[in-house]
Amino acid sequence: MAKIVIVGGVAGGMSAAARLRRLREDDQIIILEKGPFVSFANCGLPYYVSGEISKETDLIVQTPESLQARFGLDVRPFHEVTAIDPEDKKVTISHKDESYTETYDYLILSPGAKPVIPPITGLDTAKNIFSLRNVPDVKKIMQHLQLNSVKQATIIGAGFIGLEMAENLSKRNIKVTIVEKAPHVLPSIDEEMAAYIEKELTNNNVTVITSKAATAFQNAGQKIILDDGSILDSDVTILSVGVRPETTIAKKAGIKVGLNNGILVNDKYQTNFADIYAIGDAIVVKQQITNKDSLISLASPANRQGRQVADNIAGLNHPNKGSIGTAIVRVFNQSAASTGINERTATKLGLNFKVIHILGKNHASYYPNATDITLKLIFNAETGKIYGAQGVGASGVDKRIDILATAIKGELTIFDLPELELTYAPPFGSAKDPVNMLGYAAMNIAEGLSTNIQWYNLQHELSTGKVLLDVRDSEELIHNGHFKNAINIPLNELRCRINELDPEQAYIITCHSGLRSYVGERILKQAGFTVENLDGAFALYSTVRPNEISRD
Amino acid sequence: MAKIVIVGGVAGGMSAAARLRRLREDDQIIILEKGPFVSFANCGLPYYVSGEISKETDLIVQTPESLQARFGLDVRPFHEVTAIDPEDKKVTISHKDESYTETYDYLILSPGAKPVIPPITGLDTAKNIFSLRNVPDVKKIMQHLQLNSVKQATIIGAGFIGLEMAENLSKRNIKVTIVEKAPHVLPSIDEEMAAYIEKELTNNNVTVITSKAATAFQNAGQKIILDDGSILDSDVTILSVGVRPETTIAKKAGIKVGLNNGILVNDKYQTNFADIYAIGDAIVVKQQITNKDSLISLASPANRQGRQVADNIAGLNHPNKGSIGTAIVRVFNQSAASTGINERTATKLGLNFKVIHILGKNHASYYPNATDITLKLIFNAETGKIYGAQGVGASGVDKRIDILATAIKGELTIFDLPELELTYAPPFGSAKDPVNMLGYAAMNIAEGLSTNIQWYNLQHELSTGKVLLDVRDSEELIHNGHFKNAINIPLNELRCRINELDPEQAYIITCHSGLRSYVGERILKQAGFTVENLDGAFALYSTVRPNEISRD
Repeated sequence: MAKIVIVGGVAGGMSAAARLRRLREDDQIIILEKGPFVSFANCGLPYYVSGEISKETDLIVQTPESLQARFGLDVRPFHEVTAIDPEDKKVTISHKDESYTETYDYLILSPGAKPVIPPITGLDTAKNIFSLRNVPDVKKIMQHLQLNSVKQATIIGAGFIGLEMAENLSKRNIKVTIVEKAPHVLPSIDEEMAAYIEKELTNNNVTVITSKAATAFQNAGQKIILDDGSILDSDVTILSVGVRPETTIAKKAGIKVGLNNGILVNDKYQTNFADIYAIGDAIVVKQQITNKDSLISLASPANRQGRQVADNIAGLNHPNKGSIGTAIVRVFNQSAASTGINERTATKLGLNFKVIHILGKNHASYYPNATDITLKLIFNAETGKIYGAQGVGASGVDKRIDILATAIKGELTIFDLPELELTYAPPFGSAKDPVNMLGYAAMNIAEGLSTNIQWYNLQHELSTGKVLLDVRDSEELIHNGHFKNAINIPLNELRCRINELDPEQAYIITCHSGLRSYVGERILKQAGFTVENLDGAFALYSTVRPNEISRD
Repeated sequence: MAKIVIVGGVAGGMSAAARLRRLREDDQIIILEKGPFVSFANCGLPYYVSGEISKETDLIVQTPESLQARFGLDVRPFHEVTAIDPEDKKVTISHKDESYTETYDYLILSPGAKPVIPPITGLDTAKNIFSLRNVPDVKKIMQHLQLNSVKQATIIGAGFIGLEMAENLSKRNIKVTIVEKAPHVLPSIDEEMAAYIEKELTNNNVTVITSKAATAFQNAGQKIILDDGSILDSDVTILSVGVRPETTIAKKAGIKVGLNNGILVNDKYQTNFADIYAIGDAIVVKQQITNKDSLISLASPANRQGRQVADNIAGLNHPNKGSIGTAIVRVFNQSAASTGINERTATKLGLNFKVIHILGKNHASYYPNATDITLKLIFNAETGKIYGAQGVGASGVDKRIDILATAIKGELTIFDLPELELTYAPPFGSAKDPVNMLGYAAMNIAEGLSTNIQWYNLQHELSTGKVLLDVRDSEELIHNGHFKNAINIPLNELRCRINELDPEQAYIITCHSGLRSYVGERILKQAGFTVENLDGAFALYSTVRPNEISRD
């Protein structure tokens, strides 16, 4: 019989405890949680703010009593570990102003991550600034909303939690402003994909301010000064600028940390002390695609790690293989999801990569209520390796990114994506699913049938003398807007009007979604023209650069 | 410049034509289609019957004119190929009572499959019996519905099209009866999974008759005689008992056929005549999981094959790697999907396999409107190889089966399923997605932590003296019904009431979904008991064997 102490009782810690019990009926298992709740639904917290999740009890998955009854776990909320003694194998615990120690045979650290609090002047005297990580946090926010006349809210930081809070505060008829330091919302995905979400926010009356940071709070937080000198009025402010590993106690105990103070563990989740394990948001993991150290604060890997650490302690060998990082956020009627690495990271790492975007539908276009899905793929055109994928749309984005996340885990290449046989009936998909299309489009690049340029290179390429050829129909140009300085020959007229084009001239070709421009590219290429396809075409470009589109 | 003749202008044929044009601008490409339409949405046809797809034009993806304008294709509807001459490389074509020939450099056969018409007495004199494969078929059905007072419909054959027709006819307020020769609806999936769909049909006032066949039609089809002598009244009858390759002309020309007269092709889609290729529902393909010859009548492989045959003709080497077969059907508010092989096939092939079922939710259970998903996995417990998967539920079944289909294509094993990092936010999934849970459950079997028995073995196992232990709470037994002859100890009381159990007695343990029974199994196993888990538990058993459940 071993004595196992687990520090932190949410995703990773609680998974470890339950699995340990199923493997070792006789062990003593103690869970120490500094907060009031264990096993709560932290990803559900924003939805409690709007009332979409209406009962606090819905957020609490298990209680100490239910965990004792079912798993024989000794769960201790409001018990904070203040010191770890790896030599004597004991922890010091603070509870109700008293302190005591517990010895352990195995110690599992699952302390999670804490919100980053940026050093902004006036934060200490502000009364209306909150972060959101646990149930007490959301209760404080709700109390503030109930006791005050809250008309305007400010979200500082436009990551997942920031955007979910923007939506849920808006649903309470609060006017929301988002302030994001990065050039676009959702810094974890790329700018042109984030543009769809920014548009959805704006369409829902949320004000989005990017490339600006808060520098000071005044009037007890009622005024926020931005770095360009502008001032925002705010009745409630949510700080959501990221998290960092909660590893102060671990470091003090001599447990080795790495990237951003994340705990270093081997593939059995052991720290530099063989009896001390660590899991969840607090640990440094291997990004499976790049093999680099990484911090991934997501519930799914934390749950898996909790189970695996239990297996490893119980003698089942289930090593940590690393994580690729898959995430999704719903923002009003759109969602954005990603898996693997983004284009910015691929560039920073100097990877040899290509990018494609495709515009598809969530299900058969001929079946009612089909909606757009824009997918992006980042891949190596020589080996076909998939580095990452992103998607935005009203419906079915989760499915496509899940398929691509599975493909990455299975080390499928772009050449395999067309081979995927996915469910097809009119309400669910298409005979050629957008994921298949993504594979075909990537193969066309890899096999030299198509050459594309990215949206951010268009103006530069045009400035070198290339000519933009738009093959949409003329009504589309009138209804949807058009590129400045593009020439227009509808695709169906291209073969018979090809003599209007100059064989000595380099062209960039575009249409609405990229399908027709690719057909046009093939016609022109086979006729000897030099032509490149504007990846993502008008649909993408007009979303990320709306001001460059003419609507006269 | 080559001359390419394509026979059949729907999924495969049209994909081939469009791709060929993009690769070879100068080739002459002729598409011969015996019907009036090319490139129509055949999977949408049932939805036209209810009006859910309201316009006939929505079913027609392309017209000969649009295909000429965009792709320079010579599309000839109402042109039926009546003979192929492989020696002289020409085809004989019948059009408006005239006949002519076309030579070819390459011939691509994409004739599809035709409905099986069973030899039932009286079929020739019946006036109200239809099959559904193309636009003229659906127009005939619609005309019959409009011109006659149709109150009762009969569907013979409960496959995908049969069930879709049942739903769509019901939505026209027609009372539908389904007659299926096999022991359950949806013979392509297994009985217990089909039971959920049968329940949904019954809940929607559709009468389901299984294990019976129609033997005769009387009164011009108004009466249907079944093989047990019973008689059905039917104002309209849909024959949907399957399809077979449409290969009469090909066979006459000396093209070699195999399984069920499917055309035999090599991995470049070449028939025994090097210049004659074949694709789509008409060809024999390799079932990738079993490596056996197979006929797979699905749009997704047909489309891929169309593109690949074009690539191969154009000198890009894209071999046919085979198909695994992935399909889905919506039946009122439920859907059923499958990928790979079913349990029946695994048994028939003598594979060494295990089966598990799990009951999960489409998204986080704490987020509003979570609905059940039942997943089934058929796998090899030694190697972890996944043979097939099935799912039923109101929402999110397509996503899970797509993930599993991708895992199969990537040759991921059950040990990899927990590693999948899938999108999680409350509206989309769970931190442990049902697919992850499936992996965990399969690993528990593979690693000997859990032993299960299948629903169809329960009564036999109990007859050998084993005792069924239900660990649900007593209120659940009252509200949901209970097994006859089971003893009941709620899981949370199991540890303290373990002395009520006999260590010499073998037990089978169950709960509602299988989660608690597994925890109970672990408690008992570690205490030295002999115990097996009833896979799928009460939820599955009560669906497939409702009559064996006590509700008093």
